[in-house]
Amino acid sequence: MTDPTRSERRARRRPAAEEQSPRPDRALAYRQLVNPFTPLRVFSDDHVEEMHQAALGVIEELGMSVLLPEARARFRAAGASVDDESGLVRIDRGLVMEAVAKAPPIIDLVARAPERSVKLGGQHVAIVPVGGPPHITDTDRGKRPGTLADFKDLTRLCQAFDVIHLIGAMVEPQDIAPQFRHLELMQAVLTLSDKLPFVYSRGQAQVADCFAMIRLAHGIDEQAFGQRVFCYTVVNTNSPLQLDRPMAQGIIDFAMAGQLVVVTPFTLAGAMAPITIPGALTQAHAEALVGIMLAQITRAGAPVAYGSFTSNVDMRSGSPAFGTPEYVKAAFGAGQLARRIGLPWRSSGATSSNTPDAQAAYESEMSLWGALMGGCNMLIHGAGWLEGGLTASLEKFILDIEMLQMFAELFQPVPFSRDEMALSDMAEVGPGGHYFAAGHTMQRYHSAFYTPLVSDWRNFGQWSDDGARTATERANLIWKKTLAEFVPPAINPAVADALAEFVARRSAEGGAPPTS
Amino acid sequence: MTDPTRSERRARRRPAAEEQSPRPDRALAYRQLVNPFTPLRVFSDDHVEEMHQAALGVIEELGMSVLLPEARARFRAAGASVDDESGLVRIDRGLVMEAVAKAPPIIDLVARAPERSVKLGGQHVAIVPVGGPPHITDTDRGKRPGTLADFKDLTRLCQAFDVIHLIGAMVEPQDIAPQFRHLELMQAVLTLSDKLPFVYSRGQAQVADCFAMIRLAHGIDEQAFGQRVFCYTVVNTNSPLQLDRPMAQGIIDFAMAGQLVVVTPFTLAGAMAPITIPGALTQAHAEALVGIMLAQITRAGAPVAYGSFTSNVDMRSGSPAFGTPEYVKAAFGAGQLARRIGLPWRSSGATSSNTPDAQAAYESEMSLWGALMGGCNMLIHGAGWLEGGLTASLEKFILDIEMLQMFAELFQPVPFSRDEMALSDMAEVGPGGHYFAAGHTMQRYHSAFYTPLVSDWRNFGQWSDDGARTATERANLIWKKTLAEFVPPAINPAVADALAEFVARRSAEGGAPPTS
Repeated sequence: MTDPTRSERRARRRPAAEEQSPRPDRALAYRQLVNPFTPLRVFSDDHVEEMHQAALGVIEELGMSVLLPEARARFRAAGASVDDESGLVRIDRGLVMEAVAKAPPIIDLVARAPERSVKLGGQHVAIVPVGGPPHITDTDRGKRPGTLADFKDLTRLCQAFDVIHLIGAMVEPQDIAPQFRHLELMQAVLTLSDKLPFVYSRGQAQVADCFAMIRLAHGIDEQAFGQRVFCYTVVNTNSPLQLDRPMAQGIIDFAMAGQLVVVTPFTLAGAMAPITIPGALTQAHAEALVGIMLAQITRAGAPVAYGSFTSNVDMRSGSPAFGTPEYVKAAFGAGQLARRIGLPWRSSGATSSNTPDAQAAYESEMSLWGALMGGCNMLIHGAGWLEGGLTASLEKFILDIEMLQMFAELFQPVPFSRDEMALSDMAEVGPGGHYFAAGHTMQRYHSAFYTPLVSDWRNFGQWSDDGARTATERANLIWKKTLAEFVPPAINPAVADALAEFVARRSAEGGAPPTS
Repeated sequence: MTDPTRSERRARRRPAAEEQSPRPDRALAYRQLVNPFTPLRVFSDDHVEEMHQAALGVIEELGMSVLLPEARARFRAAGASVDDESGLVRIDRGLVMEAVAKAPPIIDLVARAPERSVKLGGQHVAIVPVGGPPHITDTDRGKRPGTLADFKDLTRLCQAFDVIHLIGAMVEPQDIAPQFRHLELMQAVLTLSDKLPFVYSRGQAQVADCFAMIRLAHGIDEQAFGQRVFCYTVVNTNSPLQLDRPMAQGIIDFAMAGQLVVVTPFTLAGAMAPITIPGALTQAHAEALVGIMLAQITRAGAPVAYGSFTSNVDMRSGSPAFGTPEYVKAAFGAGQLARRIGLPWRSSGATSSNTPDAQAAYESEMSLWGALMGGCNMLIHGAGWLEGGLTASLEKFILDIEMLQMFAELFQPVPFSRDEMALSDMAEVGPGGHYFAAGHTMQRYHSAFYTPLVSDWRNFGQWSDDGARTATERANLIWKKTLAEFVPPAINPAVADALAEFVARRSAEGGAPPTS
């Protein structure tokens, strides 16, 4: 039990090697993540089947309230029992599963830069930054309403780290009038990043504008656009058992255009879902199945992901809690349900902490392990989420990148061979020696291990002499440095001009107000 | 993607329930942890077998340097080839595995209070605080050499939280002369705690004193003491491939007394072990097997645990790194090797951070997931470890307790039944409603979810108005409150007197200097 001390002294004998060169091989390894681990499970296969069948029973008997008449018409045409007065749609389980079976198990997501394209499904993992917060914070300026400038900075940070695969809705730019926001956001994403963009489902006119801009960025026409997946949206059911107008419209618009819809019931157990994990998951499963069915009856084979976001509330205050033990169990269970229906599974990284501190780190780690070791394919809110999702934090973004890169490294296979067992080195070094100059060490020391972004591994004296900065303080320096050094990805000037002209024209025309 | 905001508003509609009562049922559930998850693996069974056989080959061909003549004599008597000049012991693989097979797969650890007794092995998990640091720190007083008063405070903290199962060597009491330390430590542990104590292997005389004091505490004689396990020690091999005198003596003394020895090679890949994970694990496996064999040839069936502590160094500075991706992979692999030989597996919680910040939290989480989801049975350094093990931190101790309690909750099975699916509640609440007053909610809301120790789930306004404390600042208040409210466990006054008399007598006799 004393050995860390002893071994530390020993380890420090090694003379510092020269500053090592950056490792493009590691950076590239983060662009296409494959999770080699068998997903962790919390339910038996029988229990998964029971929840699946119970969810189908809920759809058949209780039904789901669908507020958009067009969506109800589509369900009626597909054979569902529809009550236009109450809005309730009840669907035979056979029809539900027939539709869901048409969804593709693996989806190719096409980014503006080919090397940024990723796969969704199977063992592939795509990571997405925080989405939706109205506020932004950093330790210099504090919490404030989000602006377009903040959104652009977050887009630059997303672009700068390979472990972020898709762009999200990192912060709401409250300085831009709602009818112009989608235009400004899309122009920012398409010029500051070459990764696949997110599109808000806030009405058909906004969605049409965004699709048009993405076609301009890719230099493709509507037909080519409909044949591959160039963007995605997230549609939340209005739990319990309700699908509101803009969300249903989003599913229809995206399915018709062949673009990805992530159908995510956001269910807090004890609030908008039953307080038990099996109950919350069963309800969420029913809601997701109905949303996915709407996509498939709109266009068979439309790309969809099975989203889950189940956590608990603090039963004393009603506050949502994230990264809790219950959150982890719900994530493992949701992954099992997603695999039951064979679809790509979306989960989330989250915390309730109000500041990028130790709580933010341990709750985020819990949610990451729950999601990623539960086998998730699309991790949303992976970087920058703070305060239950109400605020994007620049320091938290950097801390999350570190945590995500550690997972990306964990996913890399361990090379194994007779040579990797290093028996020749053991013979060479012998009892009581050290490996600093051994053959395997000399061959590998530049690249054997992950080099951290934020973590400070220096000893207490060196760390103290250099300002005794916490990880959060170092993260502050890192986001500033990353922004200062940012170089936007290459873009054809004609494309940039076309995007600018589009935004100018549509803005002059009054933009497109969001619908709800 | 907007739903956290919307749902948060909705969740907050719930009127705050009355302050809920403490939950003894949850606290009790932490006293006996059973890990229900299938351990994560990083190697195929074939590769595990290759490493195991390669380790046996290292023992046969390279041998291990054993510095204690008595240990060499025992190996020689057991059939090993021993060179007394070099100290090298080479052992046929058949003899190694024959001896290792005698070690029990599951061990009963007998604490002073029967309800604190735990099992080691199988799916059982026992958690141990930090061990060995010379320094202590807290955010009020800063870093300083450890004292007996600090050790006593850490013992009180260990006693106060059910998720800590065994006592450790939480800090070195540098204000006590080395020949008296073991007496003072043992008296503190046996009076301030009713959990199973750790004993340092620092020479036969110290060990004999500690065993005598434990017998006094249990009111048993030497014969009864030898029949069950009342304490444990940790023996680190002196990697690579060396077993020094006090460590070998510790194995022999503990095995003879039938007390638990945790044999742990502490191997930093690239320093005292090969830089590759298969190489580092193969060497560590060889060292552990030799240590375990020494216990078994001393007393067949002696209780031992297979310890592993493999991490990497920063190849630029030589600094040890903990909670890294490589650390997690090595933990998963070590667990596989432990299961290959069928013994209880000891792993660790660790971080390189110099302060109890976000890095300390995310590195500790990585090491906890690596250890616990790798299937470890004994987690050492589970609470309070900071600065690569050189310092015990009171705030980190509390943050770790929170993380450990979340694992303890994660280990609790999810109740599953038709009723748990809450279909009746779904019918009652209906589309668009809420579950705050639903039947399942009312029955369960007092105890459905884990209530955190440190995490603050209040909204930003409430949290700000209450001082905007970070998790580390809250942890500072929690350890102080825990110490202020501490009530020592019951002890027979005659036993306490006997312990005090023993310490007084042995101190008057000059104590027992540590040997090395």
